[in-house]
Amino acid sequence: MSFDTELAEAQSAIGDGFDRLFAATPDLPLHRAMRHAVSGGKRLRGFLVVAGARLHGAEDALNPALAIEAIHAYSLVHDDLPAMDDDDVRRGQPTLHRAFDEATAILAGDALQTLGFELCLAPGCHPDAAVRADLAFSLARASGADGMVLGQALDIAAESAADPLDLDGITRLQAGKTGALIGWAAEAGPRLAGADIAPMRAYAQALGLAFQITDDLLDHEGDAGEMGKAVGKDAGAGKATFVSLLGADGARARASQLVDEACDALAPYGKEAASLIAAARFAISRRS
Amino acid sequence: MSFDTELAEAQSAIGDGFDRLFAATPDLPLHRAMRHAVSGGKRLRGFLVVAGARLHGAEDALNPALAIEAIHAYSLVHDDLPAMDDDDVRRGQPTLHRAFDEATAILAGDALQTLGFELCLAPGCHPDAAVRADLAFSLARASGADGMVLGQALDIAAESAADPLDLDGITRLQAGKTGALIGWAAEAGPRLAGADIAPMRAYAQALGLAFQITDDLLDHEGDAGEMGKAVGKDAGAGKATFVSLLGADGARARASQLVDEACDALAPYGKEAASLIAAARFAISRRS
Repeated sequence: MSFDTELAEAQSAIGDGFDRLFAATPDLPLHRAMRHAVSGGKRLRGFLVVAGARLHGAEDALNPALAIEAIHAYSLVHDDLPAMDDDDVRRGQPTLHRAFDEATAILAGDALQTLGFELCLAPGCHPDAAVRADLAFSLARASGADGMVLGQALDIAAESAADPLDLDGITRLQAGKTGALIGWAAEAGPRLAGADIAPMRAYAQALGLAFQITDDLLDHEGDAGEMGKAVGKDAGAGKATFVSLLGADGARARASQLVDEACDALAPYGKEAASLIAAARFAISRRS
Repeated sequence: MSFDTELAEAQSAIGDGFDRLFAATPDLPLHRAMRHAVSGGKRLRGFLVVAGARLHGAEDALNPALAIEAIHAYSLVHDDLPAMDDDDVRRGQPTLHRAFDEATAILAGDALQTLGFELCLAPGCHPDAAVRADLAFSLARASGADGMVLGQALDIAAESAADPLDLDGITRLQAGKTGALIGWAAEAGPRLAGADIAPMRAYAQALGLAFQITDDLLDHEGDAGEMGKAVGKDAGAGKATFVSLLGADGARARASQLVDEACDALAPYGKEAASLIAAARFAISRRS
């Protein structure tokens, strides 16, 4: 099966999963807002869960795939708020506080975070409670004050710092802000199967960094229409990015090198890892 | 041991627990804000965890006690935000977005929610992963879009509704907004011990409602200095409360009747439940 087919399959399974989930909720702005927030997007994190699970012989990975997409969506909703990045457009649609209101966006983000944990811990996620606890505990470590939220806090701290971040600083920021959830997504498969997470962890560390460098390149060069969100904001705000520190060519070369590292980490799996290797190539060749 | 002594012991253990937790974090505004948010408060929910655990022979309940206080603190931080209740004072201190800024308050609330799940799922919480998964899953059900956040969404929806809520509506709102976390706190003890949760659930349902009726009475009669937060806001906003629906005397009588029901639910435990019975009496006699 090609990467495109596998990605489309994962996108469709995730979309259907959210449809079933929200079909059973009350018709309140809160629930409509949550549904809006998990619509669209590339589903790259959910795909990593599904593909990583298949690679390790775990066929049912829908709950963790929905979980990581719910956590990712919560982070975008709160990141877009007026007090944070104050963005109006996301995935080509009005951001949640624009489509609804700020209070609903705050609450919907909160409830999406909770939903991420609930999905990992629901008995239907995996028959072994120890696996469910391991998935949810690692998700908490990846998304909280030592993981994703730490990255966002470092980002805010950098805005008021006297000097822009250097390469080490921005790499640490990225490891939290983007890397931690990508890492969890890649590791979820071996966790579901009780297998060694080390190769997928190495793959995800390189992939996460390449992904963020590409985000910076797209923000630098990109087209707001194609991206479905505002571009050029970081450079406009005088923020350090991989592009400002390495130059566009240097950033592209570094991303390409990281993708090679990510693919090397999957060598133990041989041809079975073809779709994850294609996903890494996609992460740096995408246009949005 | 008297209720006062047990409450003071639980408060002290919870305060020390948070001190140890935050001693190991970086010195960023995010972590200082999280610490600020979990300072002070009555720790009633944490006490319910500790007392409920002791009643069932489970001595170590610190992690779930910290967890419910972290989740409760996150809910207060987000509830106080300008887009929500826009409050300036909480527990006699500036609210988090006043002491820091809005972005930090949003992120600190987010990370406190994550911390609640992390604390339940950490191996040190309980040796059996199935118990940890059960604690965290029930916490997710209690705090998300079917629990506490649902209550907050119903509260917001009521503000723009043509008619104020009736008694059924406000009871349903309260069951989410205040009742769900109090319920989880009371049930955590039997969950830790693998015991029947039914008596503690019945106790908490009556206690939670009595607690909210008392909150409405304090908001109606209270003194902002004693309360450590703004009072009279609900009546001022024309919102239905238990006092507006039942009158102050009717609300007091209903709260007292509910506390009797809460105590009756603990009859199977006999004298061992004395401190939980005292906690229920405290919940309606408190001045803040």
